[in-house]
Amino acid sequence: MASDSESMVDIPGSESVAGKEGLARRDFLRASAVLGAVGVAALTPGLTHAEAPPDTPPWMRGAGAPMSAYGVPASYENKVTRTLIRSQPGTTGSGASRTPLEALDGTITPSGLHFERHHSGVPDIDPAQHRLLIHGMVKRPLIFTMEALARYPMVSRIHFLECSGNSQLLYQATPPTVTAGQTHGLVSCSEWTGVPLRILLEEAGVEPGAQWIIAEGADSAAMSRSIPMAKAMDDAFLALFQNGERLRPENGYPVRLFLPGYEGNMNVKWLRRLKATPTAAMTKDETSRYTDLQADGKALMFTYPMEVKSVITRPSHGMTVPGAGLYEISGIAWSGNGTITRVDVSVDGGQTWASAPLSAPVLPRALTRFRLPWRWNGTSTVLKSRALDDTGAVQPSREKVIAEHGSNVIFHFNGIQAWGVAANGEVKHVYA
Amino acid sequence: MASDSESMVDIPGSESVAGKEGLARRDFLRASAVLGAVGVAALTPGLTHAEAPPDTPPWMRGAGAPMSAYGVPASYENKVTRTLIRSQPGTTGSGASRTPLEALDGTITPSGLHFERHHSGVPDIDPAQHRLLIHGMVKRPLIFTMEALARYPMVSRIHFLECSGNSQLLYQATPPTVTAGQTHGLVSCSEWTGVPLRILLEEAGVEPGAQWIIAEGADSAAMSRSIPMAKAMDDAFLALFQNGERLRPENGYPVRLFLPGYEGNMNVKWLRRLKATPTAAMTKDETSRYTDLQADGKALMFTYPMEVKSVITRPSHGMTVPGAGLYEISGIAWSGNGTITRVDVSVDGGQTWASAPLSAPVLPRALTRFRLPWRWNGTSTVLKSRALDDTGAVQPSREKVIAEHGSNVIFHFNGIQAWGVAANGEVKHVYA
Repeated sequence: MASDSESMVDIPGSESVAGKEGLARRDFLRASAVLGAVGVAALTPGLTHAEAPPDTPPWMRGAGAPMSAYGVPASYENKVTRTLIRSQPGTTGSGASRTPLEALDGTITPSGLHFERHHSGVPDIDPAQHRLLIHGMVKRPLIFTMEALARYPMVSRIHFLECSGNSQLLYQATPPTVTAGQTHGLVSCSEWTGVPLRILLEEAGVEPGAQWIIAEGADSAAMSRSIPMAKAMDDAFLALFQNGERLRPENGYPVRLFLPGYEGNMNVKWLRRLKATPTAAMTKDETSRYTDLQADGKALMFTYPMEVKSVITRPSHGMTVPGAGLYEISGIAWSGNGTITRVDVSVDGGQTWASAPLSAPVLPRALTRFRLPWRWNGTSTVLKSRALDDTGAVQPSREKVIAEHGSNVIFHFNGIQAWGVAANGEVKHVYA
Repeated sequence: MASDSESMVDIPGSESVAGKEGLARRDFLRASAVLGAVGVAALTPGLTHAEAPPDTPPWMRGAGAPMSAYGVPASYENKVTRTLIRSQPGTTGSGASRTPLEALDGTITPSGLHFERHHSGVPDIDPAQHRLLIHGMVKRPLIFTMEALARYPMVSRIHFLECSGNSQLLYQATPPTVTAGQTHGLVSCSEWTGVPLRILLEEAGVEPGAQWIIAEGADSAAMSRSIPMAKAMDDAFLALFQNGERLRPENGYPVRLFLPGYEGNMNVKWLRRLKATPTAAMTKDETSRYTDLQADGKALMFTYPMEVKSVITRPSHGMTVPGAGLYEISGIAWSGNGTITRVDVSVDGGQTWASAPLSAPVLPRALTRFRLPWRWNGTSTVLKSRALDDTGAVQPSREKVIAEHGSNVIFHFNGIQAWGVAANGEVKHVYA
């Protein structure tokens, strides 16, 4: 058995546990019985099934609310919202809102909490009037109504979407004192359903020499990106549905481009135009914006996939761990290059690591939930997670990201996130 | 090659196609080019990327709406709602609402459209005041706050939930003239996250001889069911999250029992009490209700799993197929006993069948999407789907269900659903 300072536990036939001692899940449960239960002494169990406990709550004393046409969250959850960033000066709706990752669990993001990033607000598009044009280097330019588009064969895929600017606060010299959602909440995950782009391009008849597709949105910023033809013909699709229902307005209603694994802005929302061209268009959105300025003054362009990454969502900044004892560490991992194969968790600032079980199904280019029991001894420490994907890529340290790319860049930060736990249980963002 | 009237097509290397002739997906696409595209002649493609097509829509001429704290569907989708059934006479909120399956695609049901079935409305439960009691034949009776419960290890699972009364209109002598959602919409599918029940029962210490768990809800109907101990110790869990966020009120906020594959009412919402007992409690909800009256006057009790089933959602009753041509048939299949292994589709009233590709991931006890290209020749016909699961069970015909169980029963209908397509393209529910 490893010593206290070197423990890395993976008990056969049981979940592994991060902590100063090896613990099987069963031990976790036994030890947490006292902590998990409250008020046992005050309990008067009903003696028969018909007899209710004495504290019959007010909501059992009369009929509840009727059915509703379209449900909303409980009023008690009204603080679980996207974090709004004010619109950029002189604009309306140019900015972002973030998913409150620390309040969520599982892997699907409810559509109402999917992050937003708009360049000129959310257009109010009448789907009966909206048209999609495919033109440029094609044999048959085509215009589609939304009804015509919905007749085509579709695919359904669970995929994350991440803004390339996600976690950019971690390029700062000092740790941002905000929640996991406020640093990492420009990533969300949905089941998307739509028409493979390849089908539509084959229908239009792409001409030889067309190497790019320029995608343009119907917002007033005419958000535009150049898509390599290889990606367009591979797994790209035009999404019409999000988590079962038609796309939400802020996610591109009535139709958006979806490029699995690629940075968010390329998944052009409110899609109105696809133009086949021989070269990239060098639009404003891929030159003055969404390029990665390196330390040497040169900028990287066309950095498409979002790299392997993870973050612990519970516990995380702003929470308090209520005393020494047993807890579950829970977090999300993802990679735009493939499938998560492993997530390591450290509860001692990176000296030792334990492999966290992944919640099935583990899908390519989708959020993957990891969970690991953790025994906290009540002294200050640092929690970290490190994800690996099936290309062999390993999530780097923050220091390594900055050493390689400098700190002028504001995109593609995928360094390891550290949460400091103080002796009083307070959890804060730290660089460690 | 099979004759016109006997075609069953499964082209190697291509999706199979149901229709009067074998067609590969590529043919589907070529043939549908004219149908799918409109207004090509009127098109003036932009000559450069910067030049927009002439019909610049009004929503591109000014900034759109700002970010929002919690998003809602587009106003244009305001007809996509649950179908409300009025509360039963003399009650408030006792009844059901149904998921509009025909308007959805993919497999996840947005939480706002998850079906409802309440016995005395939706209680307005303050999670800070709510308690869960585990008692009866246990060594240590326990009361949990919701905070205490949320500290335990969790699991995330994508599962369907189906009311045992789903599709009961098909026991009628004449085909109900309502939509797919109105007949089959008491089934929905979500990602549920919560604490395995086994963990909590082991913590309370179940005594020998305790064979059942009585689960009671905190609605004023005190909805109560007896759960076999074997299921409670197997895959049962207490769900706290639905599609990433805390449960919706109408789905049991702040905590519900979840029994994968079992009929909906056993998944007790607003859970307040679990009592270990030697025998089933014979509650009103498992004697006067939720028993299956057979033709011979005897009633089946404790019919837990929802059997293998499927329904075509597009096209379906109330839709019109706009002329001969190529379409995609899309539908959902599920089984409370396991995983869907195959869905057969017939476009000639059941004379011939083709196997429909299933959309990955195909998960146990989850909605599974099937899709199949269909070439319609413009004459009247009947569409059907038939699901199979990994226990070897095959979805039976409506006639077989009624022959075996009579038509006094109102629960557990899983017969094959038939949609008639008239020569004018109108789709209607038929018995065929």
